[in-house]
Amino acid sequence: MNNFTFINPVKIIFGKGQIAAIADEIPADARVMITYGGGSIKENGVYDQVIAALGNRSIVEFKGIEPNPHYETLMQAVNLAKRHRIDFILAVGGGSVIDGTKFIVAAMEYEGEDAWDILAKKVPVTKAVPFGTVLTLPATGSEMNSGSVITRAETKEKLAFGSPFTFPKFSVLDPETTYTLPLRQISNGIVDAFTHVLEQYLTYPVNAPLQDRMAESILLTLKEEGPKAILNPQDYDTMSNFMWCATMALNGIIRVGVPTDWATHYIAHELTALHGIDHARTLAIVLPSLLRYKQETKKEKLLQYGERVWGVSSGTEDERLEATIQATIAFFETLDIKTKLKDYEVGEDTIREIVRRFEERGVKNLGERADIQVKDVEEILTMSL
Amino acid sequence: MNNFTFINPVKIIFGKGQIAAIADEIPADARVMITYGGGSIKENGVYDQVIAALGNRSIVEFKGIEPNPHYETLMQAVNLAKRHRIDFILAVGGGSVIDGTKFIVAAMEYEGEDAWDILAKKVPVTKAVPFGTVLTLPATGSEMNSGSVITRAETKEKLAFGSPFTFPKFSVLDPETTYTLPLRQISNGIVDAFTHVLEQYLTYPVNAPLQDRMAESILLTLKEEGPKAILNPQDYDTMSNFMWCATMALNGIIRVGVPTDWATHYIAHELTALHGIDHARTLAIVLPSLLRYKQETKKEKLLQYGERVWGVSSGTEDERLEATIQATIAFFETLDIKTKLKDYEVGEDTIREIVRRFEERGVKNLGERADIQVKDVEEILTMSL
Repeated sequence: MNNFTFINPVKIIFGKGQIAAIADEIPADARVMITYGGGSIKENGVYDQVIAALGNRSIVEFKGIEPNPHYETLMQAVNLAKRHRIDFILAVGGGSVIDGTKFIVAAMEYEGEDAWDILAKKVPVTKAVPFGTVLTLPATGSEMNSGSVITRAETKEKLAFGSPFTFPKFSVLDPETTYTLPLRQISNGIVDAFTHVLEQYLTYPVNAPLQDRMAESILLTLKEEGPKAILNPQDYDTMSNFMWCATMALNGIIRVGVPTDWATHYIAHELTALHGIDHARTLAIVLPSLLRYKQETKKEKLLQYGERVWGVSSGTEDERLEATIQATIAFFETLDIKTKLKDYEVGEDTIREIVRRFEERGVKNLGERADIQVKDVEEILTMSL
Repeated sequence: MNNFTFINPVKIIFGKGQIAAIADEIPADARVMITYGGGSIKENGVYDQVIAALGNRSIVEFKGIEPNPHYETLMQAVNLAKRHRIDFILAVGGGSVIDGTKFIVAAMEYEGEDAWDILAKKVPVTKAVPFGTVLTLPATGSEMNSGSVITRAETKEKLAFGSPFTFPKFSVLDPETTYTLPLRQISNGIVDAFTHVLEQYLTYPVNAPLQDRMAESILLTLKEEGPKAILNPQDYDTMSNFMWCATMALNGIIRVGVPTDWATHYIAHELTALHGIDHARTLAIVLPSLLRYKQETKKEKLLQYGERVWGVSSGTEDERLEATIQATIAFFETLDIKTKLKDYEVGEDTIREIVRRFEERGVKNLGERADIQVKDVEEILTMSL
């Protein structure tokens, strides 16, 4: 096992009826801004529960944080919050609203000229306005970590940041808030969470059997519960299990002491930035090709994953590796998530553009062995055509 | 899955050489008290590393926190710390030193007449002096939770308390600090951690498959790594895996949303209080009888545990239940932990005394179904004779 540091101070308040509990989590005299997305929370009762819980607190609303939240939109929220001297933000929504809110709270306290530098120049965040979340879409795990991915619409850049100051103070996870999700978002959430686990698990062994089994626990549970969630998205137990899997997939607990990959995410972000393809779908496009391309260096973990998660135990090593990758693809396709670029009408032009951008940005040394260079990215994407 | 709240703000700093990292975790101007046990840390190099890391900070030492730490001893530490206006405590040792330190930091800020009331009268802790830990014995999980068990020597009472204010600020887990542990303590630690998991797992199903698998992950890893730790207690990877299992067994993560038992602990504490038997050994005495006594209401989880952890899959239901309990006993005995009262020269007198104490204290409704009464405790202990 490698040396590690772990900390995760987020308070999780899980279960039906728990939105009311935010009344005890936000200071009674707080000046609160609620951030949300397109407004579905006004149709499914979540908004009403939030307003009831906030009681007499002074409230400002910021509506319209889009999927892959835009820097441009978020800076409007920053201005609104500053104007109203907001001292607590409540993010109500999925990963985009929560990621966006992490940027807002950091940008509100940013003392440099342009808060975009937090992303582009990796300027460290040294303070932030406190915030909590009410999660309505299990997927990204943002509700229990300090990371955030932001898109600049103007330049089609999608960049990440994180800081000890951008952990939510609390997150409410009420599975009932997911009952009205479109199936497309449920599928996306399952694939997103599943891929988060694989990024932290399909690397190379470092004798960390507990972390391996914890990762496999999430994979096996998503494998079981995912298809059930599609069939019956109003089954409380199913949605509870899916929701908790998505949170556990990226709260840091399976990552301790082991190498992590993240090349799939790094490459996939470009497909969203350039074409607006759903994040989870871009992962499903890149991951299988990356696993095939890297199957030699990932062999031991791939074989273990195949056997323990998909029951792949017979055949030559090469056959088992391929069967394992095929099982992963089949799982994504069961969830109606396509895994080829052509399924999204994306061709070689886009690969060339991604190569150009990576060369311009000086991208190099991706993956757990820091051995994926731009030419490898080109080959991986070509395998996904 | 049941509703739940989870929070665990402890920073874990794991790995070889990490004691030096405490230099960055304790304020530079802190007045530090170091608490420790019998002094083995002065022989194995841990003390020297701690002193080096603390640098120029003002330091007071409190030596002599015994196993099953005594209220009487800890109150001496409270007085010493107050006299020196200590504002940070560093606990260096195993679960007893850490549990004891949690009581010290709470008692230092206690405003009532007698800090024993925190235990005996369950007076809530409302503030505490901050503290960190350097763990030297994987076992209790105290390094990453807020709970503590304290013994009053005078009355032979062993009672528990916990509070949001008694989480360590940080815990350093360096597996190399375990290299000089007596085998007896390694065995105890394995059984202690294993039983912690079972207390949170062997109850009844509530459709929480991820929590079940996470619990089984720890059990399977302890089953594998435990015997290796006994054979080769200076193998870094083995001790790392054991250490991380023990921490994960009681940091709250496997407990979320599921019922918990804890009757074994409740009963076993009396055997330590009355006879000074090692905590882990009292668990090994009580657990098998409790499982047999309650096998009807614990049936579904017992069968799952038997199959997934011990590979028990054939025979009638009764045969599988008994084979599962036998496998658990055999595991304890492999670690040289005896499971009968007579192995510790304890007889019916002690059972009568425990019954008397429980009746006097009005103990009732133990276990996940709150259905274990004093007469059941008597029967369970009689089965362990």
